[in-house]
Amino acid sequence: DESAKKVEEEVGRVVEQARELQESGASLISRISNEEQSLRQKANSLESSIRRLRSLINSLLSQKLLDPKLADKLEEDLLRARFIITDGDAAAFLPAKAQGRFLRMFLGPINVRASRKDVQLKVKEEYNSYRDRTAFLFLLFPLTLLILRSWIWEGCLPAFPVQLYQAWLLFLYTGLALRENILQANGSDIRPWWIYHHYCAMVMALVSLTWEIKGQPNCAQKQRGVELFLQWAMMQGVAMLLQNRYQRQRLYTRIALGKANRMDVVWGETAGVDGQLWVLCPILFLLQGFEAYVGLLLLKTAFVGVVSEWQVIFCGILLVLMAVGNFMNTVQTLMAKSRF
Amino acid sequence: DESAKKVEEEVGRVVEQARELQESGASLISRISNEEQSLRQKANSLESSIRRLRSLINSLLSQKLLDPKLADKLEEDLLRARFIITDGDAAAFLPAKAQGRFLRMFLGPINVRASRKDVQLKVKEEYNSYRDRTAFLFLLFPLTLLILRSWIWEGCLPAFPVQLYQAWLLFLYTGLALRENILQANGSDIRPWWIYHHYCAMVMALVSLTWEIKGQPNCAQKQRGVELFLQWAMMQGVAMLLQNRYQRQRLYTRIALGKANRMDVVWGETAGVDGQLWVLCPILFLLQGFEAYVGLLLLKTAFVGVVSEWQVIFCGILLVLMAVGNFMNTVQTLMAKSRF
Ligand SMILES: CC(C)(COP(=O)(O)OP(=O)(O)OC[C@H]1O[C@@H](n2cnc3c(N)ncnc32)[C@H](O)[C@@H]1OP(=O)(O)O)[C@@H](O)C(=O)NCCC(=O)NCCS
Ligand SMILES: CC(C)(COP(=O)(O)OP(=O)(O)OC[C@H]1O[C@@H](n2cnc3c(N)ncnc32)[C@H](O)[C@@H]1OP(=O)(O)O)[C@@H](O)C(=O)NCCC(=O)NCCS
Repeated sequence: DESAKKVEEEVGRVVEQARELQESGASLISRISNEEQSLRQKANSLESSIRRLRSLINSLLSQKLLDPKLADKLEEDLLRARFIITDGDAAAFLPAKAQGRFLRMFLGPINVRASRKDVQLKVKEEYNSYRDRTAFLFLLFPLTLLILRSWIWEGCLPAFPVQLYQAWLLFLYTGLALRENILQANGSDIRPWWIYHHYCAMVMALVSLTWEIKGQPNCAQKQRGVELFLQWAMMQGVAMLLQNRYQRQRLYTRIALGKANRMDVVWGETAGVDGQLWVLCPILFLLQGFEAYVGLLLLKTAFVGVVSEWQVIFCGILLVLMAVGNFMNTVQTLMAKSRF
Repeated sequence: DESAKKVEEEVGRVVEQARELQESGASLISRISNEEQSLRQKANSLESSIRRLRSLINSLLSQKLLDPKLADKLEEDLLRARFIITDGDAAAFLPAKAQGRFLRMFLGPINVRASRKDVQLKVKEEYNSYRDRTAFLFLLFPLTLLILRSWIWEGCLPAFPVQLYQAWLLFLYTGLALRENILQANGSDIRPWWIYHHYCAMVMALVSLTWEIKGQPNCAQKQRGVELFLQWAMMQGVAMLLQNRYQRQRLYTRIALGKANRMDVVWGETAGVDGQLWVLCPILFLLQGFEAYVGLLLLKTAFVGVVSEWQVIFCGILLVLMAVGNFMNTVQTLMAKSRF
């Protein structure tokens, strides 16, 4: 009876403590949302001040009431202030720029922005290592298929392993597109095109799944389209591996320079990797040329009439468009960088 | 010159304010992480107390040192305390149960848990309305295909619209699976099976995409498998519509009773919808029977030799497994509910 009493007391205490925990949690949440509110107000008023000052500077400049050099300096100060608002530690508490349709479609209205910089960096690092792992498979998988084709399968790919590969591609590109959208929501400056590029690749993988893989007789000719598709995929693997090496280096430079604080880095960041970029880009251009070439070959096989399914034409056009887009965006990136 | 000075001053002030904003943000983040730390410690020690007390109660009971009635009451108190820890307002700040592999595969290490209850509810409501929208299409899309087949296409489905539909299914099920994983991370009690069920449906949609849709001659026979697949999909639409009506009602009851505070609801929640469940379940059982029947028919067409692709056999087996799983889990849900 003694011990029963004691247990009862202890249970009462535990329940009490649980209730206290519940209250601390609730109060923390309400305090956070109050502070968020106040940060948001400050940020809004700052943003409108910045807008006002910029137009003021412009009008003073045009009336020649302001020294152009001073104006430049002030502009840069304002840019920096803006940057602090949109990318600093307070940014996590400001209303997010609406997350893209893609994320909303797949995930619903959940917030994917991390409030802490170290978490954001972790997400980015994990993205890089995800790409490393997949780039490797990207090379290995189609290579194996092509080797087996000539060694064992006597020039005729069986449908199942190819479809397995295509399903894997679809899954992979969906993952990449989702992750890149998440990075964007976390403040990455990734150009929208690189994300669209992955949407296109998703569509391509999907279409290729419906693409019938014909067997004997006359296999080599009928499977020309699939063969080209596999070659393109391998080439993607090479591009990814190169890009990964470069971008990982870039991230390390960034972390080393700016310690999780991007604002300090942007103005001096290319320093460490500039040289690499000029080696990488010619290779990328070559690969992009090959991408367009594969697209054109696909179109040719379709129009010469060897393989006349719509999937071949569709993939051909898509590949050419992707190559053009990749080229234009790589050039624009280079131009933007050389301006600094 | 006067105005230049003024602008310069103002810009200086704005930069200063931006820096202050940055500091408030940083300090808010560090305060949050400190408080998180302390909540986590408290929660951990509470959890171990609860574990200790439960085993103490059990041992006292077996030594007959405790009145069984009192023991029951204490057990329930402890359960409630546990519930507060795992589901209360503090839960958002505790280390999440590791998010499932599926989410990690697609999204990387991003946290999808919302800390505020109202956001969690919004996510849930959006999930329900997403299901409503799709359930409607679920019925309409295959129905249109089947109607067009007999009216216009003379008993022979063209490949493209069917594949479009299958691609849509794949996309849809992926979205549902992701959203349900997110709900689970936000504390939903969804049974794992319903999520696995959507993984199976994803696999099925993927496999059906590789499934060649043969044309004339002898279309009706060759397309028997596809026809059955479409019928199954329609049936899924009916099941979803019914389930949605019930579950929406349930959420409203919950919100009305407990105001975003789940703990108060769990012990009395079924009250409002108990009746509905007993109407819903026979229909669900009927549909599950039909699901198994479609699966068996698929297997029959495969083994009789009309359509002998592996896809048919695979989908047949999968459908039967899904039907069995659905049945078992529905029964278990009913049993769990009737015990309260
Ligand atoms: C040209 C290239 C090397 C420039 O890379 P970069 O120096 O990182 O470019 P930016 O400075 O504009 O990058 C801005 C942001 O976008 C990201 N990014 C750039 N290109 C990206 C790509 N292709 N995929 C994903 N993210 C990319 C960067 O990581 C950076 O992110 P951060 O702001 O979070 O740090 C890169 O865009 C690239 O490799 N493009 C070619 C890809 C291609 O053509 N592939 C197919 C070949 S067939
Ligand atoms: C049987 C059934 C009606 C019970 O629903 P319920 O009363 O909500 O069940 P529970 O109380 O166990 O629900 C616990 C949680 O799981 C969710 N849930 C239950 N079944 C679900 C399902 N099939 N899909 C998604 N979520 C489900 C509930 O919304 C609830 O979420 P919450 O904790 O966030 O509020 C429901 O599970 C169901 O409709 N199952 C049959 C589905 C089926 O067989 N479909 C295919 C037919 S061929």
